[in-house]
Amino acid sequence: MTGLRPEIVRRADQIELVDIAPELLLERLSAGGIYPAEMIDAALANEFRLGNLFALRQIALIWLGNLGTSKNCQRCSLGAGDAEHSDADTTATRTQENAGMSTRPYVSPSTGTQIRAVLFDVFGTVVDWRTGIIKDVGTFTAAHGLNLNEEQFADDWRGLYQPAMETVRSGSRGYTYLDVLHRENLVRVLEDHGVDTQALTGDDVERLNRAWHRLPAWPDSVSGLTAIRRTYIVGPLSNGNTSLLLDMAKRAGLPWDVIIGSDLTRAYKPAPAAYLRTAEILGVAAGELMLAAAHNTDLDAAQHAGLATAFVCRPTEHGPAQVSDLAPTGSWDILATSIDDLAVQLSCQR
Amino acid sequence: MTGLRPEIVRRADQIELVDIAPELLLERLSAGGIYPAEMIDAALANEFRLGNLFALRQIALIWLGNLGTSKNCQRCSLGAGDAEHSDADTTATRTQENAGMSTRPYVSPSTGTQIRAVLFDVFGTVVDWRTGIIKDVGTFTAAHGLNLNEEQFADDWRGLYQPAMETVRSGSRGYTYLDVLHRENLVRVLEDHGVDTQALTGDDVERLNRAWHRLPAWPDSVSGLTAIRRTYIVGPLSNGNTSLLLDMAKRAGLPWDVIIGSDLTRAYKPAPAAYLRTAEILGVAAGELMLAAAHNTDLDAAQHAGLATAFVCRPTEHGPAQVSDLAPTGSWDILATSIDDLAVQLSCQR
Repeated sequence: MTGLRPEIVRRADQIELVDIAPELLLERLSAGGIYPAEMIDAALANEFRLGNLFALRQIALIWLGNLGTSKNCQRCSLGAGDAEHSDADTTATRTQENAGMSTRPYVSPSTGTQIRAVLFDVFGTVVDWRTGIIKDVGTFTAAHGLNLNEEQFADDWRGLYQPAMETVRSGSRGYTYLDVLHRENLVRVLEDHGVDTQALTGDDVERLNRAWHRLPAWPDSVSGLTAIRRTYIVGPLSNGNTSLLLDMAKRAGLPWDVIIGSDLTRAYKPAPAAYLRTAEILGVAAGELMLAAAHNTDLDAAQHAGLATAFVCRPTEHGPAQVSDLAPTGSWDILATSIDDLAVQLSCQR
Repeated sequence: MTGLRPEIVRRADQIELVDIAPELLLERLSAGGIYPAEMIDAALANEFRLGNLFALRQIALIWLGNLGTSKNCQRCSLGAGDAEHSDADTTATRTQENAGMSTRPYVSPSTGTQIRAVLFDVFGTVVDWRTGIIKDVGTFTAAHGLNLNEEQFADDWRGLYQPAMETVRSGSRGYTYLDVLHRENLVRVLEDHGVDTQALTGDDVERLNRAWHRLPAWPDSVSGLTAIRRTYIVGPLSNGNTSLLLDMAKRAGLPWDVIIGSDLTRAYKPAPAAYLRTAEILGVAAGELMLAAAHNTDLDAAQHAGLATAFVCRPTEHGPAQVSDLAPTGSWDILATSIDDLAVQLSCQR
């Protein structure tokens, strides 16, 4: 199931799932049974790491289990046109296809409602923050003649993210833009890594801080969102402020219909208001809104707030040693291996 | 200048403006000197009405005057690629072209700043509210066996728009969603037109009220916005609430990057906060933001708030008898005959 492109799945008359243990798959790969010799090392270092394979296999097995039990689901027949993926989002087709927004919208088993909007967690789910931050920290260290461990720096900076938002969620501090929290955290991490921040200008620090506005999308994000947008409202449901999410979308080509940042809801996830105020602004009921996220805690809070849920597995968000969120820990409506895969599954009317 | 398609202007090596009086143009048209016989009546009833021709001629002459005085303006050479219009907004090109957002952004003469975002008044400027409302009132009267003057009904409904918002602007009432104001006004107009609203269900009234979510775009809006979006952030700056603007955009294919409705700024134009809070949310300075609007009062307030301005002439917004906003009454940065024309002019670096 890993890496199989949705257009190939769609063309197939029949899909047979061959379940082999991850260890055996690695063995076959190493022996040259899957890829040509020159691709083996790269595959072992990337998608075919053991943690990945365990997580993806678990998702595939749950997915398979669902197929057998949901009698009305047409997902397994995946006919042409059910979920056409394409990079081309012509204005003409958008107009035509959104006019009714009616191509069999997905009904969430948990909310019992047709979904109207699919909103996405962004950092980790839609964009690869770690790769982006590491790259921009590298540019920064090169420009200033510094010697830093960029990977550790990125992880440390991200490590201060939840504690900073917690000061707002707990009420000990009023709503503060994520850009401001990121910058406070950046100064602290620079100092922790031995950088003399007094020797830097405010512009230097701000330029690096805006790395969060420039994060790269995962390879499947733009095509998956483009497909989902044909039938549903798509937007971020992120702790980022609106201008951060807007700059990122322009740069990465994320085709959002609407951007409601945390500065507009004045709430940080997983506070219930973050989900419920977004639904109110969009003019949809909570149950008509699906959150797609790579993080179980986010989905848990969304489900408690009455939203539908989709888990999108991102086993390398935290780099090769990731141990969290390798598998679903709750009862989510959809389990997907990518946003492309989510698009395929959403086209199915339950 | 009227009706000349931008792609033709672009291909031209040279443009010669032939200025003839509107009366003479009408005479030539009637005599069969411009269109074939079967098109003459339609032309006289639509674009070639005298009021239109006066307004468009005035704009063309001012435009021509500007060409002669702004020495650095490349607008008159209109080379290929300066402002490529196309209905196809592929994700691939968006990604590429927005990556830098740097194709010679327009510098506003009034604010002295490079423009980063071009925001649009919506009702009248981007969508043809009158045609849309007349059509939906027609559907409503047919369904309920009523006999109403639909044009008068549309004008009366719209006539209550400014007074209703004024109760919010004056502070006599807290911020109230435009959807709610529209509905209160609808009930009043129905009663004024002799409809027994007690005999209608709430759903009937609400369905008609949502006609504002379904308004059709002017023919040049989607192509013009698509072109402008390649270089600038585009979005509405409207008194509509976010969900109204979102539903309208999905249906009409308006390619907004971001939608900040009046429910998010909690202010109705022309209150200064409507412009300034929008700039703040987008993370741009007021002078980096251009308002494009068909209404001089809107542009006047935007200019006072420090924004750049573009007048987009919409001489039939109020139907064939329109007398307001047929020409610019202030010193706006750009005068445009359509959003396509605005796209061409914005591609020019002053």
